[in-house]
Amino acid sequence: MYLERINQTNDIKKIEEKNLPLLAEEIRRFLIDKISTTGGHLASNLGVVELTMALHLAFDLPEDKIIWDVGHQAYTHKLLTGRREGFDELRKYGGMSGFPKRRESPCDCFNTGHSSTSISAGLGLVQARELLGGFNKVISVIGDGALTGGMAYEALNNASRLESNFIIVLNDNNMSISENVGGMSTYLSELRTADAYTGLKTGIYNSLSKIPVYGDKMIEQIRKTKSGLKQLIIPGMLFEEMGITYLGPVDGHNVEQMVKIFHEAEKLENSVLVHVITKKGKGYAPAEQHPARFHGAEPFDIKTGLPTSKRAKSNWTDVFSTVMRKLGDRDEKVVAVTAAMPDGTGLKRFRNMFPDRFFDVGIAEEHAVTFAAGLAAAGLKPVVAVYSSFLQRAYDQILHDVCIQNLHVVFAIDRAGLVGSDGETHQGIFDLSYLSSIPNMTIMAPKNKWELSDMMKFAVNFDRPIALRYPRGAAYDGLREYRHPIEYGKSEILFEESDIALLAVGNMVETALGIRERIKDVGYNCSLVNVRFVKPLDEQMVRDIAGDHKLLVTLEENVKSGGFGERVLDLVNTERLKTNVLINALPDEYVEHGNVDILKRESGIDQETLFKKILSEYVGL
Amino acid sequence: MYLERINQTNDIKKIEEKNLPLLAEEIRRFLIDKISTTGGHLASNLGVVELTMALHLAFDLPEDKIIWDVGHQAYTHKLLTGRREGFDELRKYGGMSGFPKRRESPCDCFNTGHSSTSISAGLGLVQARELLGGFNKVISVIGDGALTGGMAYEALNNASRLESNFIIVLNDNNMSISENVGGMSTYLSELRTADAYTGLKTGIYNSLSKIPVYGDKMIEQIRKTKSGLKQLIIPGMLFEEMGITYLGPVDGHNVEQMVKIFHEAEKLENSVLVHVITKKGKGYAPAEQHPARFHGAEPFDIKTGLPTSKRAKSNWTDVFSTVMRKLGDRDEKVVAVTAAMPDGTGLKRFRNMFPDRFFDVGIAEEHAVTFAAGLAAAGLKPVVAVYSSFLQRAYDQILHDVCIQNLHVVFAIDRAGLVGSDGETHQGIFDLSYLSSIPNMTIMAPKNKWELSDMMKFAVNFDRPIALRYPRGAAYDGLREYRHPIEYGKSEILFEESDIALLAVGNMVETALGIRERIKDVGYNCSLVNVRFVKPLDEQMVRDIAGDHKLLVTLEENVKSGGFGERVLDLVNTERLKTNVLINALPDEYVEHGNVDILKRESGIDQETLFKKILSEYVGL
Repeated sequence: MYLERINQTNDIKKIEEKNLPLLAEEIRRFLIDKISTTGGHLASNLGVVELTMALHLAFDLPEDKIIWDVGHQAYTHKLLTGRREGFDELRKYGGMSGFPKRRESPCDCFNTGHSSTSISAGLGLVQARELLGGFNKVISVIGDGALTGGMAYEALNNASRLESNFIIVLNDNNMSISENVGGMSTYLSELRTADAYTGLKTGIYNSLSKIPVYGDKMIEQIRKTKSGLKQLIIPGMLFEEMGITYLGPVDGHNVEQMVKIFHEAEKLENSVLVHVITKKGKGYAPAEQHPARFHGAEPFDIKTGLPTSKRAKSNWTDVFSTVMRKLGDRDEKVVAVTAAMPDGTGLKRFRNMFPDRFFDVGIAEEHAVTFAAGLAAAGLKPVVAVYSSFLQRAYDQILHDVCIQNLHVVFAIDRAGLVGSDGETHQGIFDLSYLSSIPNMTIMAPKNKWELSDMMKFAVNFDRPIALRYPRGAAYDGLREYRHPIEYGKSEILFEESDIALLAVGNMVETALGIRERIKDVGYNCSLVNVRFVKPLDEQMVRDIAGDHKLLVTLEENVKSGGFGERVLDLVNTERLKTNVLINALPDEYVEHGNVDILKRESGIDQETLFKKILSEYVGL
Repeated sequence: MYLERINQTNDIKKIEEKNLPLLAEEIRRFLIDKISTTGGHLASNLGVVELTMALHLAFDLPEDKIIWDVGHQAYTHKLLTGRREGFDELRKYGGMSGFPKRRESPCDCFNTGHSSTSISAGLGLVQARELLGGFNKVISVIGDGALTGGMAYEALNNASRLESNFIIVLNDNNMSISENVGGMSTYLSELRTADAYTGLKTGIYNSLSKIPVYGDKMIEQIRKTKSGLKQLIIPGMLFEEMGITYLGPVDGHNVEQMVKIFHEAEKLENSVLVHVITKKGKGYAPAEQHPARFHGAEPFDIKTGLPTSKRAKSNWTDVFSTVMRKLGDRDEKVVAVTAAMPDGTGLKRFRNMFPDRFFDVGIAEEHAVTFAAGLAAAGLKPVVAVYSSFLQRAYDQILHDVCIQNLHVVFAIDRAGLVGSDGETHQGIFDLSYLSSIPNMTIMAPKNKWELSDMMKFAVNFDRPIALRYPRGAAYDGLREYRHPIEYGKSEILFEESDIALLAVGNMVETALGIRERIKDVGYNCSLVNVRFVKPLDEQMVRDIAGDHKLLVTLEENVKSGGFGERVLDLVNTERLKTNVLINALPDEYVEHGNVDILKRESGIDQETLFKKILSEYVGL
């Protein structure tokens, strides 16, 4: 009833206060209903229903700016800004994104996706307001997990100098840093906002001065360190220590209380952190009990909470998970590092078996990589398991800390290539390029699940920096009969004929297999090479194959610039090999969200498009 | 006298305690003497003479591991580990590096160069010790400036969980975060290390419980937050809050005191931060007075402190500095962002003229870029001035926060290409590759000083992400007569002939000019194109020039993979243009320290080598 009355931004302000809990419940029902069909981020969104309502009530959108860190928790924000209809096509190609997007609404003021960016961006908006003379408020909403990212700290460090209002909402769902800041009472929060603080201060000073031995010196210390006293009585001392006013904690499911504290916060002429305690999955029992499983959920049955479609085959992550367990068993030097993704990367089993050799460093990819470099420098064999798009964060650490020293760190890069419904911020389509630019790096990509195992074994027994990348989703289990031993820098020739040679990287081998059949069907010969090593390039293979093939076709799920195809073309050009090269890679564009098959078609790397392109190229030679 | 007795690691332990101050003085004299001739990092090294001595006295190298954050302060460490002779060839090609290098000594356990990595690496060594069963100590020495980098925070956040000894030495030279933690007495330090702390604790509990109104509740709070009480009496509360034991501050020029505190620190079974106060430039008046000028010093006269060789011409940084001042004057929306380098990037003048529009964010490149994205999203025109190798830190932020949203952030990339004596960690030879891989990015490079100005003007009046890169050193002031207006995506044809076409990026235009003369001298025609835009490629230019040139030669000071040459080759291949391409770029290797001219020769991108290579290629066609 009430949700239907929310058709555009600020409509929520027309709902009577007493009916807000009903609206919250309708929003929850709506989200559970929709996400059970489309899939999407459920637990985090159920946790911030009231927080979002309070923000929309306390502030004026779109003039005031709310930045959602990571952004997958912005569903209620989308609902309250007139995008209810969008939920039918949530995360589908051409449909509404699962993240804030400036192109969708003026109320989405800054796109997010990766963690820990919101305070930096918010500070930018604040400084711009000061210079351009606006009156809008800026609010960055950041989760406790995202605060483990160094970037957030860099931003807090800068926010502390601000002499203008900037509101940072810490959405603390008790999932990671809760032990530091979680156990505080509403009493202190009210005390603080009500300004009873001054009276208390005097009381303590007087009292402390009576401590016989050290009292006087302590008072002196306290006076010197301006914030000394606050440390004693205020939770969130770390923030106060950094010069940021701390308000809270406040119940993140009590709209009235939050609105009140936001109004207090906006009065201050500096950076204010409002500590809000929320419950992930709030209001839906299965999500409350298994917030991790309902983080990014597949479509599910509302009654049972179980997925509606069975997972047919094991996926790449499962295969990695199994081989890590085996490798851990066989070699005590193998250790594993993850940046807050023990589930997503499949390291949970390794952790359970070898807790001492498992390191979850939080959302801190930079630290993860240099930490691994330290482990390797001391003789261990660290495997850093990370998603392709998140490893972008550690480009410098790979280049500067791992590869200059030629250290044996293994990078297991999951979600490489197109990832689908998370969209442009999460596509893993740059890793072949950024890793190829780095000297001393070796890059592999497996064609099928057995090769992922073989490559992992090869990688942990290597002695230099080495990466392997594999995509999201079901692991390919074809071509089982092709399992030549992995040899450094050597590709695997699957079918050796003449005329056309397909050089396919990783999962493009599966696509190439289909293309080859169709090429054969129209009467041409076609070889197929499983590239295996993107770096170093198997130069001898290229030379050999150039001899009896008129066309070398490269296939990779990565942008073209700096990718595999250009390596091949460069060799052919440098050595003036007598053949032609056709590079197939992703165009120089960000790829939106949607089903991976659709994205491949739209990007021109699906079987049909590639077949036609290759054929026409060959015929035209 | 004493320095001569230091010929290998641990020789310092044979020096009588009373003579240590004399040794310190000899080391200072030695460093001043040598660096006045070779150039190098002076101020930071003079600051840590006693600290280094104390570390070498308190610990056993090479078993114990010292990691020097950034690493330019390791000169005394090199002296004390038998590398005195190396100082004659300091930072010269083939000579001793100005940074710790594992290949130089077993006492250099981890290479550094970029800031804020030492705690991460140290944690890796500690965890490896725990798993492999060693007994060595691990000590990370980090400056207060480096603590503004988010990576250091990520590492501290992880160090707090450690249940094993790990010593972090905060080398605080009062240059940046000193106001937070600087004003503490030795008294408290001794109190703490002597374990008088327990008695004090009880006293305060009792005393606080007598505070009438809030006393009881406060005690409850204090008990809850384990570290609450420590906050009150211990300096460095931020560290204690994070779960890291804080010791200090201690006088960083008092060897005895430091040795004592290090011995206290090594007894603890967790992470310990020892706060050491040092003075940058200590013992050499000009460096004490101008620590920034003597940070990385050119050869200088010891008496006056003035550089021995006059700077002949203005360098690229000066030109950027001037144009920024002008642009700031003309357009109020132009703002500047630097990551702790107002001097190095030439933004100091802009800061002095427009203090409100200047932002120094500390050593925090990631924050710098996303902060700039926020500024741009709100309508300002941020110019992020940064060194090429440091911008590697923000690859993800450029890709994820700036370019997905197509925001108008200007990247002014200084020290692009070979930088010389700082060596492999500082060479700016990857930026064309990593920036080219990013959609929506525009990349420019100026041929001479006037073009840098013109490009900066173009960039601030552009409307999307745009970068320009220029090298270290004297700005080229030739080709003044060629100053065609900058046009988006268009190169500048300097000499139009036939046969051979040189396509040169940025400062390679100057090199190409010389090559062209020599090609002409031997009787061939040669065109010369100033590329201007590395991205997007001026495709029409390539098509046109392919028509009447048998050989297209690309020239860039960047690694080949993902660079400009491959863009050209790809177009020639895709469109089957009838010409030949010769790519000249840096090989897939790290480039050591040394004079830039030597490095260019060794890397094969000097005039002589290139001329011969091009000629032989052309003749062989």
